[in-house]
Amino acid sequence: MSTEAVKVGLLGVGTVGGGVLKTIRLQQQKLSERLGRPVEIVKALVRDPGKKRTVELDHDLITTRFEEVLKSDVDIVVEVMGGVEPAYEYVRALIEKGCHIVTANKELLARHGTELIQLANRHQVQLAYEASVAGGIPILGVLRQFLRTNDISSVSGILNGTTNFILTQMEQAKLPYHEALKQAQELGYAEADPSSDVEGWDALYKSYILAQLVFGEALPLNQARRRGIDSLHLGQLTLAHELGYRIKLLAQATKAEGGVQLSVSPTLLPLDHPLAQVQGADNAVQVSGNIVGDLLFMGKGAGELPTASAVVEDLAYLLTQRFSPHPLWRERQGNHGVGKEGTWSFVYLESTGLQGTPEQILHFLNLGGVSIAKQRIQYDWANVLRIGVIARGFTDEHRAALQRDFGIQTDVFPVISRGEEQDILGAKGREVDGKEIHFGY
Amino acid sequence: MSTEAVKVGLLGVGTVGGGVLKTIRLQQQKLSERLGRPVEIVKALVRDPGKKRTVELDHDLITTRFEEVLKSDVDIVVEVMGGVEPAYEYVRALIEKGCHIVTANKELLARHGTELIQLANRHQVQLAYEASVAGGIPILGVLRQFLRTNDISSVSGILNGTTNFILTQMEQAKLPYHEALKQAQELGYAEADPSSDVEGWDALYKSYILAQLVFGEALPLNQARRRGIDSLHLGQLTLAHELGYRIKLLAQATKAEGGVQLSVSPTLLPLDHPLAQVQGADNAVQVSGNIVGDLLFMGKGAGELPTASAVVEDLAYLLTQRFSPHPLWRERQGNHGVGKEGTWSFVYLESTGLQGTPEQILHFLNLGGVSIAKQRIQYDWANVLRIGVIARGFTDEHRAALQRDFGIQTDVFPVISRGEEQDILGAKGREVDGKEIHFGY
Ligand SMILES: NC(=O)c1ccc[n+]([C@@H]2O[C@H](COP(=O)([O-])OP(=O)(O)OC[C@H]3O[C@@H](n4cnc5c(N)ncnc54)[C@H](OP(=O)(O)O)[C@@H]3O)[C@@H](O)[C@H]2O)c1
Ligand SMILES: NC(=O)c1ccc[n+]([C@@H]2O[C@H](COP(=O)([O-])OP(=O)(O)OC[C@H]3O[C@@H](n4cnc5c(N)ncnc54)[C@H](OP(=O)(O)O)[C@@H]3O)[C@@H](O)[C@H]2O)c1
Repeated sequence: MSTEAVKVGLLGVGTVGGGVLKTIRLQQQKLSERLGRPVEIVKALVRDPGKKRTVELDHDLITTRFEEVLKSDVDIVVEVMGGVEPAYEYVRALIEKGCHIVTANKELLARHGTELIQLANRHQVQLAYEASVAGGIPILGVLRQFLRTNDISSVSGILNGTTNFILTQMEQAKLPYHEALKQAQELGYAEADPSSDVEGWDALYKSYILAQLVFGEALPLNQARRRGIDSLHLGQLTLAHELGYRIKLLAQATKAEGGVQLSVSPTLLPLDHPLAQVQGADNAVQVSGNIVGDLLFMGKGAGELPTASAVVEDLAYLLTQRFSPHPLWRERQGNHGVGKEGTWSFVYLESTGLQGTPEQILHFLNLGGVSIAKQRIQYDWANVLRIGVIARGFTDEHRAALQRDFGIQTDVFPVISRGEEQDILGAKGREVDGKEIHFGY
Repeated sequence: MSTEAVKVGLLGVGTVGGGVLKTIRLQQQKLSERLGRPVEIVKALVRDPGKKRTVELDHDLITTRFEEVLKSDVDIVVEVMGGVEPAYEYVRALIEKGCHIVTANKELLARHGTELIQLANRHQVQLAYEASVAGGIPILGVLRQFLRTNDISSVSGILNGTTNFILTQMEQAKLPYHEALKQAQELGYAEADPSSDVEGWDALYKSYILAQLVFGEALPLNQARRRGIDSLHLGQLTLAHELGYRIKLLAQATKAEGGVQLSVSPTLLPLDHPLAQVQGADNAVQVSGNIVGDLLFMGKGAGELPTASAVVEDLAYLLTQRFSPHPLWRERQGNHGVGKEGTWSFVYLESTGLQGTPEQILHFLNLGGVSIAKQRIQYDWANVLRIGVIARGFTDEHRAALQRDFGIQTDVFPVISRGEEQDILGAKGREVDGKEIHFGY
């Protein structure tokens, strides 16, 4: 075996790229023992060569021209620049040159993973992407392992730290959405343009990758159910909490009869549900397997070093394995699975006009065949009426009628129940309980 | 490659052994694809051949004589009989015959792992034991992976489902210890002789294995700090809860200056600590790495199928790997790490005689140089006085003086604080807050 160094190229020296450099330096000895040869960074691509960085980097290594990376004879390239273009073009060119790729770029994979995997297989290079989902939580590796002895039926979780931080702030400090977002931006948890996070795209990319890994297929991104947190009110969080739930941005990939379902949505979780305990910028992933049962993995889903840890582990693993083709990904039209019969939803009603009493409104729903398990009613100082109900059988017709007859705006969110709880609610059928009415807000 | 079946022997067809048979049958196809050949059970050792079992098993396969397993030319043996003898003797004989071993037996490993690993290395066979710690949670594999890029400073968790079930029952149903234990036995969560679980042995075996894996060394079992839950009162749980903590049987393996520390003890965790959320018979493991940060893994720590999942994954993995020597384990005298300076403890005081008011007692502690961060006081109907304090600097002299001057019995438990909280308490120094006194129980 040669003792020539492994030549590594970096695309990007930002948060994650800087962490990768630090980790490689910190663990240089462990790494070279494991690989039988040292690891050397030979080229690093950036946009602005003059930028001050948190890691020292020899000036000769830095370049702004991708061609220099391409011709510097690298064995493996770490893509941590982000975005789809030009990352896609660069990664293609590197694969075609026979270079292995480690990437943390979930958007790139969710948009072009199917092609990149085919290309990598054709050129017999490896493509590794543990860091793209849930940062330092080694979820892809663990899932690959479970798949060997289990049939996995669902993978769900809190996959976006930014939105979980915002929701935690809203709930704990009673902040409206925009103030919590501003705070997240000031603290560096959210970017100047937060749309990918708050609109649910980032979480969707990750659950797309999880679905491909676990089920070998996923819905095209534009067919998945995606709702972000950008239209959530504090009033919804508060009512949900009073009903015994916490609203989290839940990403789910589930195998169902009609195919794989993908969804990202603010979702009500019972307060004692393990995913409801995930606070701040942490991530958590829950896996259900037929043999192993339910498992939960929790940790830092982002950040310089946790993410770098996953990148460097991929890099080392990949260099110690022989090539074997990556299982193909495929996209398939699927079942949205919206509004499954018999599932409970959180129906949030809000009205400023007060055309009708809460009792009339609830009576109307009952007459219209909506089952109600729990309800909470609030008036605030500005005479806004808010009703939160855990309901079953609520349809678009009810929504239209409420708007027409009572001037009520409606919003509906999915509810996750733990087995037992679902049964209790289910058994109650159309009965109405918990009639407390709270005045003041 | 031959298409001859992999010949597997089973020592034990109880809970786990039955699950292994079921899992191998259920996943037969996946397994043979992965291994390139089918898996066949050729011999199964039991004590009572006539016993009714939950799996069907060809009568010819069953034996009560170990020699029949030994001479049946097996490639690999799954040891799921439990106990140290005769399991130790059997496993040695099998290794010496060149047979790979998969075991779920934590006691065997904690008592004889060092020798078994040496023997296995010498005979170039593999020894796998994922199922021995935390059942279906693939914690050993994940730790091995993290070790490659991280320095791990501690591994701790709730490693015994039986005691966690009992503690959950005590807390939720306000049951005294012995009734909760009885319930656990009736529900099959605890054995007729529960001593290994409730005295903390089982959790200690597991943290010993974790320490060996992560640090390459552990304390001899008899030098570790071990306290079970068998002397816990409901009053202690209740006062701890009022102070903002939940008592869990926490197992910890930590790397410290003086060497590796191992401890199992009922420990106070802040109510919002992730490990405090672990209810019922679940297990959870928390890992701290210098790169990856803190991670938590939660799931079923025992049970037929989750445990079998780990056994079968070990079996398949081992058959697809080339032999490489297992890192040696070693035992080393170490630092008990009891009563580290500056850490807070839960000091529980109980008296039936009432020689002195709570104020006098707390004043006495203050004068004696004990810092108190929080306190709760309770009298019950039988005039028992209970005081719970979160204190620093409490020593055996205080204990003796309290007994002598006030007739008070004392019990001390470790407290885990999340970083922030520790600071807040620390900043308060010797100040006393939270003076509420609760009458009635
Ligand atoms: N941040 C996290 O915690 C985290 C966690 C998991 C996954 N990820 C993923 O990791 C990737 C990188 O994230 P990051 O937070 O490290 O991003 P970042 O801090 O913005 O860094 C991006 C780096 O790429 C360089 N770059 C960007 N576009 C370029 C272009 N067109 N040509 C040349 N260089 C370019 C930038 O150069 P300059 O420095 O000169 O601007 C910068 O060094 C993304 O795909 C992200 O989704 C991030
Ligand atoms: N149960 C769990 O969830 C779990 C989880 C993790 C690890 N483990 C570990 O897995 C191992 C097995 O546990 P288990 O719950 O499956 O035990 P179990 O139900 O008591 O089964 C033990 C099996 O071994 C056989 N056996 C015991 N001593 C024997 C002897 N001297 N000669 C021949 N056969 C003997 C028994 O035979 P008969 O059937 O004829 O009595 C029985 O089939 C233990 O080391 C345990 O710590 C268990």
